Amino acid sequence: MVRRTGEQTRTLLLRTGMQMLLERGVSAGVQHIRLQDVLRRTGLTTGAAYRLWADQSDFHRDLAVAMMRMRVIGPADAMQAAVADLMASGASGEDVINAAALAHVRTATLDMADPTDLLDAQSFLIALALRTTADTWPELTEASHERHRESVEAFSELYQRLMDAYGMRMRRGVTIEDFSEALAAIAEGFAIRALEGLEHPRYDLDGDDGMPSGEWTLLGLAVRSLVAGFMVPDDDSDGGRAASRT
Amino acid sequence: MVRRTGEQTRTLLLRTGMQMLLERGVSAGVQHIRLQDVLRRTGLTTGAAYRLWADQSDFHRDLAVAMMRMRVIGPADAMQAAVADLMASGASGEDVINAAALAHVRTATLDMADPTDLLDAQSFLIALALRTTADTWPELTEASHERHRESVEAFSELYQRLMDAYGMRMRRGVTIEDFSEALAAIAEGFAIRALEGLEHPRYDLDGDDGMPSGEWTLLGLAVRSLVAGFMVPDDDSDGGRAASRT
Repeated sequence: MVRRTGEQTRTLLLRTGMQMLLERGVSAGVQHIRLQDVLRRTGLTTGAAYRLWADQSDFHRDLAVAMMRMRVIGPADAMQAAVADLMASGASGEDVINAAALAHVRTATLDMADPTDLLDAQSFLIALALRTTADTWPELTEASHERHRESVEAFSELYQRLMDAYGMRMRRGVTIEDFSEALAAIAEGFAIRALEGLEHPRYDLDGDDGMPSGEWTLLGLAVRSLVAGFMVPDDDSDGGRAASRT
Repeated sequence: MVRRTGEQTRTLLLRTGMQMLLERGVSAGVQHIRLQDVLRRTGLTTGAAYRLWADQSDFHRDLAVAMMRMRVIGPADAMQAAVADLMASGASGEDVINAAALAHVRTATLDMADPTDLLDAQSFLIALALRTTADTWPELTEASHERHRESVEAFSELYQRLMDAYGMRMRRGVTIEDFSEALAAIAEGFAIRALEGLEHPRYDLDGDDGMPSGEWTLLGLAVRSLVAGFMVPDDDSDGGRAASRT
């Protein structure tokens, strides 16, 4: 038998664990919600649960699926609310982009007073984490795809209304759904950073050098770039040649 | 005692479980890697493990941290390799953006033949999933911040080299690190979609309406927009007025 130091044994076991993790992937992180604790909180008996689920893993699968399906309000409702007053007051397109991005940053950092908004933000972040483990169960994969379809549809509708209001159209070759996908991807990438506890970068800009002016988030600046890259004013005939300079 | 149907009991237990998940958040999904199985694979005894870790949760914490720290190659090495030949052959900036985005899409879908690249891509995706649960343990939060710092630094260096080669500078008010953050966020947002099993949108474009020509990924089109929004040619004195039209 090989004799190893404690540190060598530790390294061997962690490496083997990492190898198994690479083979199996990360599982949906709901295993700390023990069925026994759920039963205790509800005052129900173990028997009640085992008539419904064969074992705790069965319960975890249904719990993850239920969480993935949870919607407090419609997918785009919070952003719609954040920009509705601005639009009604005749704000500029830049102001709407800035406000919508700020609303998302606040969602990702759970920085909101209204309990409904807070619950919506919490469930968004938990669904985001579960989506990275969607292949744990086929039912969870299907629920994540359904959630994705609902979101793209709702945001595409909102963005279409904004485009109509501000006289913009998509550049030929891409659709409003493509734009929604790109925006959701970057918004969710920043939400991962919020889950890590990283601060979202903010700027006070003076409108110089092709940048906007006022207080902006990094997400806002990114969305502004995506709008310019994917859309063009309705009356623009050269297709915004400048965006293709790079 | 209240009498409930099976369906009512199921709803009550799942709702209570969801409430607990909202309170506690998602935990790092490493709990399916059981210490007993790791010991079996290595042929070590239970005693060997319990001299190192007080319990299985202690082992899981160290396993998650080790996985978060795992790097097969440097953070930006795969992208550097993907664009090095192109740059050397005098390819356009657009071609480099297109190729770098395609390399990332292939990473996220584990579409690579070289075993080292595949392992690097697998560990990237697992670290991404773990990052969404970084607050499970303070040690995991710290490891995720360290990983983040390393990545931003390595990608900023690569992007700076590209900017120097293609005669670009950052617009005043934002830094190369900001640009790296925005690019990483959107790339990781698309990696979540790959983890969900969603196809990455691809296009065959004809260079019309301000769009590029050839085969592009949605990530590539988004990065192209971010480049135009955050950077400007060195010799541009008006700061690319067109990008601020929206």
